[in-house]
Amino acid sequence: MSKLWQKTTNVDKLVENFTVGRDRELDNQMAAFDVLGSLAHTTMLQSIGLMESDDLALVQKELKSIYADIINGDFEIQEGVEDVHSQVEMLLTQRIGDAGKKIHSGRSRNDQVLVDLKLFFRHQLKEVVESVQKLFTLLLELSEKHKEVLLPGYTHLQVAMPSSFGLWFGAYAESLVDDLEMVLAAWKITNKNPLGSAAGYGSSFPLNRTLTTQLLGFDSLNYNVVYAQMGRGKTERIIAQALSTIAATIAKMAMDQCLYLSQNFAFVSYPENLTTGSSIMPHKKNPDVWEIMRGKCNRLQALPNDVAMMTTNLPSGYHRELQLLKELLFPAFTDIQDCLSMAAFMLQNVTVNTNILDDPKYSYLFSVEEVNRAVLNGTPFRDAYKKIGLDIEQGNFNPDKNINHTHEGSIGNLLNEQISASMNKVLISFDFNKVEEAIAKLVG
Amino acid sequence: MSKLWQKTTNVDKLVENFTVGRDRELDNQMAAFDVLGSLAHTTMLQSIGLMESDDLALVQKELKSIYADIINGDFEIQEGVEDVHSQVEMLLTQRIGDAGKKIHSGRSRNDQVLVDLKLFFRHQLKEVVESVQKLFTLLLELSEKHKEVLLPGYTHLQVAMPSSFGLWFGAYAESLVDDLEMVLAAWKITNKNPLGSAAGYGSSFPLNRTLTTQLLGFDSLNYNVVYAQMGRGKTERIIAQALSTIAATIAKMAMDQCLYLSQNFAFVSYPENLTTGSSIMPHKKNPDVWEIMRGKCNRLQALPNDVAMMTTNLPSGYHRELQLLKELLFPAFTDIQDCLSMAAFMLQNVTVNTNILDDPKYSYLFSVEEVNRAVLNGTPFRDAYKKIGLDIEQGNFNPDKNINHTHEGSIGNLLNEQISASMNKVLISFDFNKVEEAIAKLVG
Amino acid sequence: MSKLWQKTTNVDKLVENFTVGRDRELDNQMAAFDVLGSLAHTTMLQSIGLMESDDLALVQKELKSIYADIINGDFEIQEGVEDVHSQVEMLLTQRIGDAGKKIHSGRSRNDQVLVDLKLFFRHQLKEVVESVQKLFTLLLELSEKHKEVLLPGYTHLQVAMPSSFGLWFGAYAESLVDDLEMVLAAWKITNKNPLGSAAGYGSSFPLNRTLTTQLLGFDSLNYNVVYAQMGRGKTERIIAQALSTIAATIAKMAMDQCLYLSQNFAFVSYPENLTTGSSIMPHKKNPDVWEIMRGKCNRLQALPNDVAMMTTNLPSGYHRELQLLKELLFPAFTDIQDCLSMAAFMLQNVTVNTNILDDPKYSYLFSVEEVNRAVLNGTPFRDAYKKIGLDIEQGNFNPDKNINHTHEGSIGNLLNEQISASMNKVLISFDFNKVEEAIAKLVG
Amino acid sequence: MSKLWQKTTNVDKLVENFTVGRDRELDNQMAAFDVLGSLAHTTMLQSIGLMESDDLALVQKELKSIYADIINGDFEIQEGVEDVHSQVEMLLTQRIGDAGKKIHSGRSRNDQVLVDLKLFFRHQLKEVVESVQKLFTLLLELSEKHKEVLLPGYTHLQVAMPSSFGLWFGAYAESLVDDLEMVLAAWKITNKNPLGSAAGYGSSFPLNRTLTTQLLGFDSLNYNVVYAQMGRGKTERIIAQALSTIAATIAKMAMDQCLYLSQNFAFVSYPENLTTGSSIMPHKKNPDVWEIMRGKCNRLQALPNDVAMMTTNLPSGYHRELQLLKELLFPAFTDIQDCLSMAAFMLQNVTVNTNILDDPKYSYLFSVEEVNRAVLNGTPFRDAYKKIGLDIEQGNFNPDKNINHTHEGSIGNLLNEQISASMNKVLISFDFNKVEEAIAKLVG
Repeated sequence: MSKLWQKTTNVDKLVENFTVGRDRELDNQMAAFDVLGSLAHTTMLQSIGLMESDDLALVQKELKSIYADIINGDFEIQEGVEDVHSQVEMLLTQRIGDAGKKIHSGRSRNDQVLVDLKLFFRHQLKEVVESVQKLFTLLLELSEKHKEVLLPGYTHLQVAMPSSFGLWFGAYAESLVDDLEMVLAAWKITNKNPLGSAAGYGSSFPLNRTLTTQLLGFDSLNYNVVYAQMGRGKTERIIAQALSTIAATIAKMAMDQCLYLSQNFAFVSYPENLTTGSSIMPHKKNPDVWEIMRGKCNRLQALPNDVAMMTTNLPSGYHRELQLLKELLFPAFTDIQDCLSMAAFMLQNVTVNTNILDDPKYSYLFSVEEVNRAVLNGTPFRDAYKKIGLDIEQGNFNPDKNINHTHEGSIGNLLNEQISASMNKVLISFDFNKVEEAIAKLVG
Repeated sequence: MSKLWQKTTNVDKLVENFTVGRDRELDNQMAAFDVLGSLAHTTMLQSIGLMESDDLALVQKELKSIYADIINGDFEIQEGVEDVHSQVEMLLTQRIGDAGKKIHSGRSRNDQVLVDLKLFFRHQLKEVVESVQKLFTLLLELSEKHKEVLLPGYTHLQVAMPSSFGLWFGAYAESLVDDLEMVLAAWKITNKNPLGSAAGYGSSFPLNRTLTTQLLGFDSLNYNVVYAQMGRGKTERIIAQALSTIAATIAKMAMDQCLYLSQNFAFVSYPENLTTGSSIMPHKKNPDVWEIMRGKCNRLQALPNDVAMMTTNLPSGYHRELQLLKELLFPAFTDIQDCLSMAAFMLQNVTVNTNILDDPKYSYLFSVEEVNRAVLNGTPFRDAYKKIGLDIEQGNFNPDKNINHTHEGSIGNLLNEQISASMNKVLISFDFNKVEEAIAKLVG
Repeated sequence: MSKLWQKTTNVDKLVENFTVGRDRELDNQMAAFDVLGSLAHTTMLQSIGLMESDDLALVQKELKSIYADIINGDFEIQEGVEDVHSQVEMLLTQRIGDAGKKIHSGRSRNDQVLVDLKLFFRHQLKEVVESVQKLFTLLLELSEKHKEVLLPGYTHLQVAMPSSFGLWFGAYAESLVDDLEMVLAAWKITNKNPLGSAAGYGSSFPLNRTLTTQLLGFDSLNYNVVYAQMGRGKTERIIAQALSTIAATIAKMAMDQCLYLSQNFAFVSYPENLTTGSSIMPHKKNPDVWEIMRGKCNRLQALPNDVAMMTTNLPSGYHRELQLLKELLFPAFTDIQDCLSMAAFMLQNVTVNTNILDDPKYSYLFSVEEVNRAVLNGTPFRDAYKKIGLDIEQGNFNPDKNINHTHEGSIGNLLNEQISASMNKVLISFDFNKVEEAIAKLVG
Repeated sequence: MSKLWQKTTNVDKLVENFTVGRDRELDNQMAAFDVLGSLAHTTMLQSIGLMESDDLALVQKELKSIYADIINGDFEIQEGVEDVHSQVEMLLTQRIGDAGKKIHSGRSRNDQVLVDLKLFFRHQLKEVVESVQKLFTLLLELSEKHKEVLLPGYTHLQVAMPSSFGLWFGAYAESLVDDLEMVLAAWKITNKNPLGSAAGYGSSFPLNRTLTTQLLGFDSLNYNVVYAQMGRGKTERIIAQALSTIAATIAKMAMDQCLYLSQNFAFVSYPENLTTGSSIMPHKKNPDVWEIMRGKCNRLQALPNDVAMMTTNLPSGYHRELQLLKELLFPAFTDIQDCLSMAAFMLQNVTVNTNILDDPKYSYLFSVEEVNRAVLNGTPFRDAYKKIGLDIEQGNFNPDKNINHTHEGSIGNLLNEQISASMNKVLISFDFNKVEEAIAKLVG
């Protein structure tokens, strides 16, 4: 084997390929945010006398032009260029000469990546929140639309009590409200500025970190520079936890859907072109979309553990494998977005079975109702349930299927407005406007 | 084997042992909260006409007496009694007769457990927050106290840049601030009332869930009853994620401590009685406490995955194994509390080595400083680093070890007040007072 | 807080409680194996001249007596004694004086624990294999017994093709064969002798490690002493993986059982006293045993990850938290044994529904059969499936439910003897006899 | 949003994109194995009268030609073709007309994928074993080469006892032996034939599964057809566990390397072009390759959990998300291979520091040696260690650094031949030859 490595260039190539990995491909997704970071950083450099005003003007003009290219899809990291930072600097230098190189003063690659990631993650979290909101709205609409349609409620997978599509759809809507509390925590932890931490120990430059914080629309700083670096891996793990929470909700809903589509339940159905059939088994309506969704979401449920396993027991300070976390996190955003939009797409096309409870195997659902009705009419509890029990045993149980659940959150009183209000309360805690205004100003 | 199961009683015993498991032992920890739930529930029952005022008075008097017993440690679930709910009901019935049985009207075992768990978790989260706060304060004190003492900063485990004990202690303090954002999310999700959801599908009783929400000091309701049940497992997973975030911070600090106590670093030391020595190797100061802490915290880092693995792909509705989550969560609170208090205990006794940087192997730390100093004095960057590089190569590098880091969050400007302020901002988001007042009123 | 720690004794107590943890309780389970290790070690010491023959005779006599006490349940680690090694040494010294102390010559605590764990794990793995074998035999018996009873086979949870109880029970039997391949790997890795590695770096004593290997019935040595120590954590992780494989099989079977007990399937049933009913819902047969089994097994599926998270990124050499792995592994053996025996217990009592396929919703199962039959009779495939498809669409599909599956492993040709043979092939690879003979000789 | 989905074609496209995912890309890697499966299947079809001899000759000739194209890199799944099975069938039909379509008789897509995966995994496992063997050989060579060079042995990361590069390299070699026991278990579970299980419930065709088993070189069958399907997901999980075991060994070695390259240890070094430097910090030799290796291997350590999370609680029978497991497993083989070859590459270039123990901080390593030496010379143990302890305390400890460790597996007696023999014993258990011969015959 040794011969293979005799020429230095081959060796370097091998090491480079192994260590750079998929960086160039993934960095493309961070390009716009890298430019934002440089716009803020250079403005700050000029303010503390480390960049001339003329150079700043030149640099900012070209950075904004590159930003526009990125937004328009006219940007990519060229073959042979290691990462997005180098690509941006190269473009800049080609266009405005040496002034372009000054964008790195007072920064290390380390805090440049840190701020790129924070800005990228912040943007992705915002998009996730918007998709969650759409699915939430749809679920509440379905809950209202089908609130009169009953279905069996199960405990232990045994037929137990009457439930309704109003409850079922509404439950998943409310689940998303709590999920966004986790996303909010991730957002708050993400939305702090690490720029200025250099290699994780600060520098002797008189940087104005408060200024870059304002320019980039961050809520505040990662104050301590050692902590700013420590945020690498931690931010990823927490975001993964937030995404896993949404994923758990979608995965459970997908499992319900797969069951309810089975011929053994037959509670819901979908148009033929949204399920996968079989040319010779026309009864089959395979719920492939829901199955793939369940799989992707369960994959996301394992994601926080993947991040933890890669970062556990690493002492403080930067370690190169932190870069590999991009390979875990970046596709996760695509996956959760795909799942959120496919869930919405499917639900727009769902048909609910309106006469499920006509099937005699669901009569027993009403046994508790009958007992409660007797109790409310004055029969002692033990007498009531003995009688109903005997009726059931003797085949004399003919329940009145008109149920009257009126308390908060029950079949007859879904409180969807309150659920909607609680969603809005979480949503306004995300200060998206502040962020958008800052970015608009920076690239304007 | 069949002979063994011939007698019905043995069979039942076997099934019971397997399914009840450690419930009795674990339920003891929930006893006080079970009583609180019953106090609120019975008040509500009377308000909707399902309990007589006289019965209410009797019941509440005895429940408060049982509550006092629990607080005083004079309570336990007796042999042969299945769970805490049965134990409380049995005591009540022994003392006040049939009125005691009425505390179950309009409730199922399911939502009784749900509310007990929420109240228990809420209490535990509060205690965790208080311990975090203590450790935070200590870390910031240590940061201030040792802010002048330098230590090497590492990247890739290579000697890189000057750091300080001020930065190091402060970083972990700031880490705890972000950790509490996750705990806050868990708190908000926990602090909602599931009571009234019955078996997960509501009931025909005209329950006033808003009233029990107020009485128990919950922030709001789990509105949708199906969602209230869906919170089982989900709440546990999210709390586990919150605890894992704190655990990750402590585990990283413990890893640093174990390294820094090694003779190869020798940055910190501890009194002999806090380390484990060896009778024949007097140089040894084994950091057993930090190692056990690291192990327990890494165990906690895996906890959310344990919860997820047990709940993934379960369709909606109650399943019996949800009960087993108590075995995962209850000890986790003990573990995180032990780790938080042992970390504080050790740190109270830490001695930092004040002349670390006298060792010549750390001279190179200052190479970047020297380059930056030259740049700030007008030398072009490339010229400056060539000269320093040459000096190092030729053994002529004698760095000025007086460093002057002044920007926000750097060695000379730790911003510990701001970190403290950001901690306070998170802390006031926990509405502990509201909760305490409600509970005080309930048992008063 | 500082006052609390002023007295050295309190401090020591606190540190001790935290670091010793549950060691005394868990070590009790290793007591017999600790004695076995000492029996082998002292024999070896005498053989190399480090123990007098008289002392050896004394020591062995008392060790065998202690061993008998342990087997009879007359042994426990006393309050104030730190671990099992100390307890045994104390008993020995009480009975035979200073000779008792010599059992530690040429050993460190580290390799004493290592060998105890290996012996303990080896014993537990053997018991697991025996329980797996019992369940396997029962499953094959059920497969044979019910081989004529058809049930629907599902793909995508959609009714798909005819299956049978013969196939269903047999599949889980065959699954256990492959599971034992993993247990065999764990067994082989476990069944190697670490004794003599001292603190992980060997010693200057002229130990005869080959002799202790033979005496303890180990298959071979962990040769390299650094590797012997490295086996700590690794052995646990691999055993956890082996157990998780069995657990995955049981968990899947439990999920099937819970579904098939649901009124929506109703494929199997159990006597009332093995399910949990509800006093007012007599139709309910909650499969609590299967649910708890599923939960425990899914907990075990997460176990390898717990071990990995606690050991990842620890450099080579002993670290104190390795001791905490006992808290993970020891209960795991109890759990898997409970699950294996409860699965067997339940299956001994299962009743299968013999007329499932009478339900018209399962008619479609036979569509593929009809097509295949036509093809075998000479109709081109595309013509055949067009005709059947049309029949189904028009409601004219009246399948012949007599199916004729004859190929290896299909409904009519289960190959249970071959499955049984493949199980035996794995079983004989475990050299249980060799181990048992060595142990018998050692304590004889 | 509804407008978007009005046109059926768009809808189908969306569903298809989501469900097909990266199948086409990943299936390319299985192409050769798909052809092998078809070669065996068609031979069998002819043997049972379901294919004419002439057709068989035609089909086999073209399949072998496609196989050659694949091996030469002249094959890819075309745009618009769903998967590898369709691509092969399409090519066949283009070349030999309708006879090409007959390769599907008696098979479903399901068992075709199953057999492709088994053949692919089997091939990959073989390649992994070969790479492990190379690394093993290199590690043993390094152990022999540097067996005289001492380095400190650590416990609790504290300087403890003398160790050697002979022990250190040899330990990782021996670790790989045990790792291959796990790979062997995975190999045995993989190397069984699922072909003929159809959709998981067998079929009415008189398939000869024993024949395809022989033709494909499988060791035996997955007998029960329901179990054959159940192997999907299970095989992947077990293979992931096997890979994780190797990964854990490499990750630990990488962690050691990163520590030992730190200036605080300086036990090993590498040529400049294999480490990453810093233009202004010439002392830095960042171990990026080892860090990335550690990261990738820790990612692999989390892989079995990812598989488990996606498959847990799925009832028996095929579910579509099982397809997503390819996205987890396929890159894992590339990653482990990259790590194994980069580890070997780095180790070929390692330089060990030969005078580590000259540093006075390592003198204490010899305290135990001195005590033991005194004991072997007749001094009672307690007297010996009191004297040495006092010497150390008073600065009079001048150890004799000539150590004499002679027992099996210690510094002076590494037993590398035995370790090598135990590796060979595992290696011959893999029946690679039988597999190769079968494949050669099939495509010859």
